[in-house]
Amino acid sequence: MKDFIYHAPTEVVFGKESEEQVARLVKKYGGHKVLVHYGGSSAKRSGLLDKICGLLREGGLDIVLLGGVVPNPRLSKVHEGIDLCRKEKVDFILAVGGGSVIDSAKAIAYGVPYNGEVWDFYLGKDDAKECLPTACVLTIPAAGSEMSESSVITNEDGDVKIGYSNQISRPKFAIMNPVRTFTLPPYQTAAGVTDMMMHTMERYFSHDDDMTLTDAVAEAVLRTMKDCVHDVLKDPEDYRARAQIMWGGSIAHNDLTGCGLSGDWATHQLEHELSGMFDVTHGAGLAAIWPSWARYVLRENVSRFVRFAVNVMDVPNDYTDPEETARKGIEAMERFYHSIGMPINIPELIGRDITDDEIEEMVRKCSHNYTITQGQFKVLTPADMTAIYKMAAGR
Amino acid sequence: MKDFIYHAPTEVVFGKESEEQVARLVKKYGGHKVLVHYGGSSAKRSGLLDKICGLLREGGLDIVLLGGVVPNPRLSKVHEGIDLCRKEKVDFILAVGGGSVIDSAKAIAYGVPYNGEVWDFYLGKDDAKECLPTACVLTIPAAGSEMSESSVITNEDGDVKIGYSNQISRPKFAIMNPVRTFTLPPYQTAAGVTDMMMHTMERYFSHDDDMTLTDAVAEAVLRTMKDCVHDVLKDPEDYRARAQIMWGGSIAHNDLTGCGLSGDWATHQLEHELSGMFDVTHGAGLAAIWPSWARYVLRENVSRFVRFAVNVMDVPNDYTDPEETARKGIEAMERFYHSIGMPINIPELIGRDITDDEIEEMVRKCSHNYTITQGQFKVLTPADMTAIYKMAAGR
Repeated sequence: MKDFIYHAPTEVVFGKESEEQVARLVKKYGGHKVLVHYGGSSAKRSGLLDKICGLLREGGLDIVLLGGVVPNPRLSKVHEGIDLCRKEKVDFILAVGGGSVIDSAKAIAYGVPYNGEVWDFYLGKDDAKECLPTACVLTIPAAGSEMSESSVITNEDGDVKIGYSNQISRPKFAIMNPVRTFTLPPYQTAAGVTDMMMHTMERYFSHDDDMTLTDAVAEAVLRTMKDCVHDVLKDPEDYRARAQIMWGGSIAHNDLTGCGLSGDWATHQLEHELSGMFDVTHGAGLAAIWPSWARYVLRENVSRFVRFAVNVMDVPNDYTDPEETARKGIEAMERFYHSIGMPINIPELIGRDITDDEIEEMVRKCSHNYTITQGQFKVLTPADMTAIYKMAAGR
Repeated sequence: MKDFIYHAPTEVVFGKESEEQVARLVKKYGGHKVLVHYGGSSAKRSGLLDKICGLLREGGLDIVLLGGVVPNPRLSKVHEGIDLCRKEKVDFILAVGGGSVIDSAKAIAYGVPYNGEVWDFYLGKDDAKECLPTACVLTIPAAGSEMSESSVITNEDGDVKIGYSNQISRPKFAIMNPVRTFTLPPYQTAAGVTDMMMHTMERYFSHDDDMTLTDAVAEAVLRTMKDCVHDVLKDPEDYRARAQIMWGGSIAHNDLTGCGLSGDWATHQLEHELSGMFDVTHGAGLAAIWPSWARYVLRENVSRFVRFAVNVMDVPNDYTDPEETARKGIEAMERFYHSIGMPINIPELIGRDITDDEIEEMVRKCSHNYTITQGQFKVLTPADMTAIYKMAAGR
């Protein structure tokens, strides 16, 4: 078992009536003049933005609006936010939206009290000593950013996407109302659940076999997500199931399912290149890679895969043949992915075969950017990566 | 499902090497001159106190020592601590010990910057606006106080024991090294696990049947505790099992297992009078009451008890007779209590029969102090309480 630190200070305010508390919470955490930061038109159309602004005004708070955050949030918008906050003397930033809006809010929060260029934090040239307090009204589950210290920003000048993590930027509170996720389309819902399950599985597939409580909690999260996604795809307004997914997304991302474990993260790295090359949805990309990764690394720790098969995928344990039980767990996961409309290989993901040249390029980038030592469950060499991509290509 | 707030800001630093970080952590949270607060001689004998003081001094921190905290921590010790902190200009309080020491530290922390009498907070006459930062090096699992906002202090003048809760007193960090719990005697270990399981069960037995993620996490905690306590009783130095129990104790108390549920807490209230009258260990008192409470309220929600029987106690589900399955779950819990040396009724707890007069007095106190509306799973009238106590008395 690894020593660990668990730190999740964000106050989660969860439920149907949670938004009503927004003004009280901003004041509790010291806000007077609030930048309400949001993305596209959906927050406006749904009435959420008006509701939040109304509640803040009723609570006696001044507000300034800044919308237009796009997926892969841009540095130019961050600069715009910093200028606006300084001019308007904003002392609190409230993100209304998903991960991109929260990440953008954190970047603005770093920049306002800083004399230099905020991008320098992302480049590792300096470390932020202070930032404005931030918080969020979450509209998309599986964002992760709502309780985390990380923020990923894209600098359009050169199209560079870099993450920066700093404890001081953790949101003070996160308002989560599952009703706001009713309108999330089926594909995004399924990809989101795949992502939150994968975040749990990246930690679960570990050689630290002795942190049984974390394993049991991880299995609880995985089983619940697996069941609830079907309920939501059948009835998008199933409050109970939407609530489990929204809260499960935060638990899957806030490190509770990683306490005492090393974590692997190779599937994430392999997918990173895939979505970089083909612009696919992150969660779908993970589903296309994982079964091949799993079969390739299976023998590193068969008993872990047996545990997964039996405790998560409800595969009967064939005690005489652990490896067969383990393989049946991977097959059951593939059936689950198909049942929620996710791909299980690269051709299903991108709609065509992938070429050897494309695989070679992905392996080159993957090895270059992250070295070949990634993957704690199995260290992957470029040859290993090639083999996994080829399996995922159906070759 | 109930709307809920989940807030657990304490930074948990867990593992064999966790103590080494104490000076860095105190400085991170703003401490310069530290009151090291502890209980009896065990912290000295084990070498922990010397180690912590040495690490703090090496880290450039000034320290002041105050020991002698007793179980049911006293107001007089709190006053002594407040005077000492003011005189020595202490700006950080580090509790080294279990729940009593942490509770005492919180009370001192409230008192130092306050102009009035600190006991007034506990009497509800005033609310603390500020307090010194506190933190802890935990030596006993199942304290709960290490991540919580509550503190219970006994005023010897009248022997009144009152709790006070305030978010500002939550420990900034909690250092948890399972090795420090190796010397905990078998009876205290078993009673502690019984208490942390009961804290989870008080929330689990709810009519909110739709918070499946919380239920699944609660079952994960309960199953893990149930298995690990046997390992620890067999080998007190089993690090893996001690670690699960220590981390499980914090999860069981930090409200994660209550998200979205109402909670019952009737067993706790019934036990409160029992330990008040007979001075028994809290955890053992809970074990002596729960089976009788469970049988008495079973029909309020049979399916909950079936779920408990099957998912926690590994009872085969007799689909033709849910009530029989539920009863078998309660019997399995009784066998578990006996297997770890816990009582399952009052005569086993106190070593003699309990009289009708004694039962009457407990019911009178229980109804008076907490009204008859306690128990969310089933509201208990004085007649109900009498019936449960009589069942637990073996009548």
